[in-house]
Amino acid sequence: MLGRTYDAQNCSAARTLEIVGERWSLLIIRDALFRGMSRYSQFERSLGIAPNILASRLARFVEAGLMKMSPVSEESEVSEYLLTEMGKELGAVVVALTAWGDRWAAPKGAPVIYEHLGCGGTVSPVIKCRACSRELKSEDLVVRPGPGTRQKSPMVN
Amino acid sequence: MLGRTYDAQNCSAARTLEIVGERWSLLIIRDALFRGMSRYSQFERSLGIAPNILASRLARFVEAGLMKMSPVSEESEVSEYLLTEMGKELGAVVVALTAWGDRWAAPKGAPVIYEHLGCGGTVSPVIKCRACSRELKSEDLVVRPGPGTRQKSPMVN
Repeated sequence: MLGRTYDAQNCSAARTLEIVGERWSLLIIRDALFRGMSRYSQFERSLGIAPNILASRLARFVEAGLMKMSPVSEESEVSEYLLTEMGKELGAVVVALTAWGDRWAAPKGAPVIYEHLGCGGTVSPVIKCRACSRELKSEDLVVRPGPGTRQKSPMVN
Repeated sequence: MLGRTYDAQNCSAARTLEIVGERWSLLIIRDALFRGMSRYSQFERSLGIAPNILASRLARFVEAGLMKMSPVSEESEVSEYLLTEMGKELGAVVVALTAWGDRWAAPKGAPVIYEHLGCGGTVSPVIKCRACSRELKSEDLVVRPGPGTRQKSPMVN
């Protein structure tokens, strides 16, 4: 019932949450993206997640195209889980979540700092206008129907 | 059990997901931020969400400081739910989720377009280096311990 109701939300944020909205999912992606993890045992140790949940999340990522399985070496039967381009592009989501949490839910200060590998600068998520290059706040944005809007419903987003 | 395990994750992304990770939560925030909604009845109509779930989410937002309740007018007993600064700053998370979904989970094209109110340009989420102003990809980032890192665990993030 819940799932079907979500399906009715013609919204890319809702669809993304459909794929990675469960919290463990984004934590697995975070570890793969920014902590160099690729093996089942690494995720298990890092997250303390129940084996059946971890296995089902990884299988779902492979099925959805976020990760692909690959043997660790030619001789090995152990596989690792490597992020695809689709998976790697979730970096902006993880960085945006982290920045918000650093500001509003980290009373002892940021647990980790994301740095630019090239110059050592700290990084921030920014909403940028592609036309005028300004950095925008939420109140600077308006929403208009895109090409994927359904015509029949007046409340689509 | 699950909750306690999450608590062990000293990570701002995990803490943010603790507050708004449940999918309905971010859809409510989206409607408040970008569709001008503030009343219980508006969220209910927009999302088709069960009344008890919607009521508990809104109450949780007020408790967490993401929203505040305010009477619609001096004479009215009806309240509206207004985003605080803390809530408004989730805009970058919603835009990042939407951009990813537009690219990877919207076969018919983006359901909505976010535009810059000032100039009509389309917007993108960007990870920006605060030192050199470059726009970065996930692979351009490294993670180092921040001030809120616990010392005792070798695997904190």
